[in-house]
Amino acid sequence: MGALKLIINGAKGRMGQALIHCAEADPDLIVSAALDHGDDLAAALSGCDAVIDFTHAEVTLGVAEACAKAGKALVIGTTGHSDAVRTRITELSKVIPIVFAPNFSVGVNTLFWLTRKAAEILGPDFDLEVVEMHHRLKKDSPSGTARRLVEILAEVRGLSYDSDVRHGREGMVGERTPTEIGLHAVRGGDVVGDHTVIYANVGERVELTHKASSRDTFAKGALRAAKWAHGRDPGLYDMQDVLGLTD
Amino acid sequence: MGALKLIINGAKGRMGQALIHCAEADPDLIVSAALDHGDDLAAALSGCDAVIDFTHAEVTLGVAEACAKAGKALVIGTTGHSDAVRTRITELSKVIPIVFAPNFSVGVNTLFWLTRKAAEILGPDFDLEVVEMHHRLKKDSPSGTARRLVEILAEVRGLSYDSDVRHGREGMVGERTPTEIGLHAVRGGDVVGDHTVIYANVGERVELTHKASSRDTFAKGALRAAKWAHGRDPGLYDMQDVLGLTD
Amino acid sequence: MGALKLIINGAKGRMGQALIHCAEADPDLIVSAALDHGDDLAAALSGCDAVIDFTHAEVTLGVAEACAKAGKALVIGTTGHSDAVRTRITELSKVIPIVFAPNFSVGVNTLFWLTRKAAEILGPDFDLEVVEMHHRLKKDSPSGTARRLVEILAEVRGLSYDSDVRHGREGMVGERTPTEIGLHAVRGGDVVGDHTVIYANVGERVELTHKASSRDTFAKGALRAAKWAHGRDPGLYDMQDVLGLTD
Amino acid sequence: MGALKLIINGAKGRMGQALIHCAEADPDLIVSAALDHGDDLAAALSGCDAVIDFTHAEVTLGVAEACAKAGKALVIGTTGHSDAVRTRITELSKVIPIVFAPNFSVGVNTLFWLTRKAAEILGPDFDLEVVEMHHRLKKDSPSGTARRLVEILAEVRGLSYDSDVRHGREGMVGERTPTEIGLHAVRGGDVVGDHTVIYANVGERVELTHKASSRDTFAKGALRAAKWAHGRDPGLYDMQDVLGLTD
Repeated sequence: MGALKLIINGAKGRMGQALIHCAEADPDLIVSAALDHGDDLAAALSGCDAVIDFTHAEVTLGVAEACAKAGKALVIGTTGHSDAVRTRITELSKVIPIVFAPNFSVGVNTLFWLTRKAAEILGPDFDLEVVEMHHRLKKDSPSGTARRLVEILAEVRGLSYDSDVRHGREGMVGERTPTEIGLHAVRGGDVVGDHTVIYANVGERVELTHKASSRDTFAKGALRAAKWAHGRDPGLYDMQDVLGLTD
Repeated sequence: MGALKLIINGAKGRMGQALIHCAEADPDLIVSAALDHGDDLAAALSGCDAVIDFTHAEVTLGVAEACAKAGKALVIGTTGHSDAVRTRITELSKVIPIVFAPNFSVGVNTLFWLTRKAAEILGPDFDLEVVEMHHRLKKDSPSGTARRLVEILAEVRGLSYDSDVRHGREGMVGERTPTEIGLHAVRGGDVVGDHTVIYANVGERVELTHKASSRDTFAKGALRAAKWAHGRDPGLYDMQDVLGLTD
Repeated sequence: MGALKLIINGAKGRMGQALIHCAEADPDLIVSAALDHGDDLAAALSGCDAVIDFTHAEVTLGVAEACAKAGKALVIGTTGHSDAVRTRITELSKVIPIVFAPNFSVGVNTLFWLTRKAAEILGPDFDLEVVEMHHRLKKDSPSGTARRLVEILAEVRGLSYDSDVRHGREGMVGERTPTEIGLHAVRGGDVVGDHTVIYANVGERVELTHKASSRDTFAKGALRAAKWAHGRDPGLYDMQDVLGLTD
Repeated sequence: MGALKLIINGAKGRMGQALIHCAEADPDLIVSAALDHGDDLAAALSGCDAVIDFTHAEVTLGVAEACAKAGKALVIGTTGHSDAVRTRITELSKVIPIVFAPNFSVGVNTLFWLTRKAAEILGPDFDLEVVEMHHRLKKDSPSGTARRLVEILAEVRGLSYDSDVRHGREGMVGERTPTEIGLHAVRGGDVVGDHTVIYANVGERVELTHKASSRDTFAKGALRAAKWAHGRDPGLYDMQDVLGLTD
């Protein structure tokens, strides 16, 4: 079969560096081009099997158009696109396979899936709380991943993120209600990202935890997505598809 | 519909007491008889819907025969039966629904299910380790639940409990092999039972944890099993069936 | 020497029951009287060495007056006294030894002491966060113990509980400041009480945790206090004195 | 006062790189020379205030001789020296201040100190267990840090590391004895180093944890040692001295 030939677009960024580093350690991958702002993607495409793009939201559409023209699989790691861009990406996914996900970590996506299943199995007797910890420089709270975890729990329970999440208990707040979901954003040091989902009933607790120790985990997930996408039918996929977590 | 009328057999034991306590707190349940050694089960059966038996392995068969004759659902909480007894229980399950499980905790059974799924999703790049903690009086190590967790992991990976589990690392043992599963039995205090399954890759970890804080959790699971079994087709079921975890 | 003869006052309460249960299991203790509302404490005092009072704030002063008259050591487990009562208790402590503490757990008091020391040693480079978890029925947040932990941290750092504690981060809150102390109250199930103090720097974290698994831990601390107080010079002591944590 | 001028010896190694990286981020430090095998330490010494040596055991003595001749403070990060070398280092410490420690992490050294204090305060009713986790490539078990933690616990309890440590419980081992100390080496992924000391009694647990997330934590401790040593009286010191943990 031979190794998959890969273009890393956004090669100078923090994620680009991690992608190159991880791809070079994988015997099934060859980085055929490491590109960044100013480089000629179109010229490089003919020599590759797939493209991973970690540039910026505004750049992504041009990358996708080029990949569609060249018939190459694309993994999109940028976020924050306009609706118009998202619509156009969906159109292009009729021509090539595109993997488009907010988080490429295998572990985090597994946590998403397990969180839903555990909520379904354990049922409403279990109180739901999410605790996350990130480094002291993180500006937004809670993390997008923690928010997604609460959304999943809310979906299973028929609750609403906006009205049922509790962000900080202080004072004589009264007994916990069965329909609230606690969400706690701890900050400190250089923690890459810890997330724990707690299901607590009288007599027992179940806790599901993910701990990221380096950005390589996100890079590896994107590489896995590229391997998965190459040779697949055109379509718009996310990491749940890549990991076979569609049930 | 009315509340389910329940016989608790083995009412004086530690689990029997927990069952009575929990059943009395449940408006959907009535304890129609709390029996123990010397009481007349057969006479009490006519007034009940289901029986939960937490006596001893030798007593269970007689209980099952009586339930089959009376057409009552049965939950068996005893363990350590002979093959002959198990065969006879299977025969009787053609007449009545019988739930037969080594552990009735909803949380532990959920952990069993999640452990298998996580191992399948995360794949062989993740190192597998199980850590359990129990009170200082526990005589056997590791716990039966921890052993079951490792068996599940071994099944998914095509490994064998007996040859691939590692019970204590000491000395210059060399790098960890991908085919070993670590199992660590911590002992101390009055810990009812904590179990953690660790999936560790470069860059990230997933951890699945169950913490039991009282025996009520086992009692509640058995009560849930009795409700589930009542009115069901004859058959031999376990807690995975009760919880709908058969997929 | 013989066993210490103890009066348990407030014997019908949850803590009173735990005290009796734990005292009976201790060969160095004899419960000479288990009293509650309506019983005659004064009459019982002559036959005892020490009194443990877990009644109500309004009752405590009468108990202390009686103990002072009879010359018996007293352990006070009630909280919420008026300033006038506290002043009078201080006066009575010139006659008899009185141990007066908000929390009698050996472990929690050890955590208080370790928390201070760790904050002093680790210094201002370490971000400070406290996470506590209690059962779903608890009405006040955060717990008194968590509040005391933050007070200790604030004292060491020259911060103020009221202005520097952060009870819930939500939205674009910006980078963590070095002078805030996070405090997170998780609620769920029947958790007796977990507390964790986190010291997080770039490259490393120290975490100090206490987990209570039963109220017996508070009962045992009070019994230890009674043994310690008997025969000691008159004075007003707390659990830090009992445990020798005065340095 | 001006910044401290520092020589990093062993600059090409993993720790040397971390030292340079951390020193450059510290406004109170200047790396006056980054040396490795083949460079002329003696020539560089005149322009520096202190030396940090992370080379090899065989090289350390020559470095120490040179520092003593030049009257410069020295931090030694190598381990595994012969008795003869250790004796000579002790002699040289009569001329210059030398900090000599197996682990320079502020957090780990704090954990050592807290571990001893907690064992003294909590007393023999608490069962002692240590759990550590390191990456899959680590060849020795348990870690040197975990071993030191158990040694500290054994010293406080009057136990012996060699006869009282338990490295893996398997089978019908019977109830836990009060004089054993459990030690569990978990391995997996790329964990830099987690250590937890557990003190477990009936009703409560205290847990002291250290988590290293990067080698920078060891580098920063060595830099702190260099600052502390500069200008101090000659003597042989360890990190407990640097951190003021001598009580």
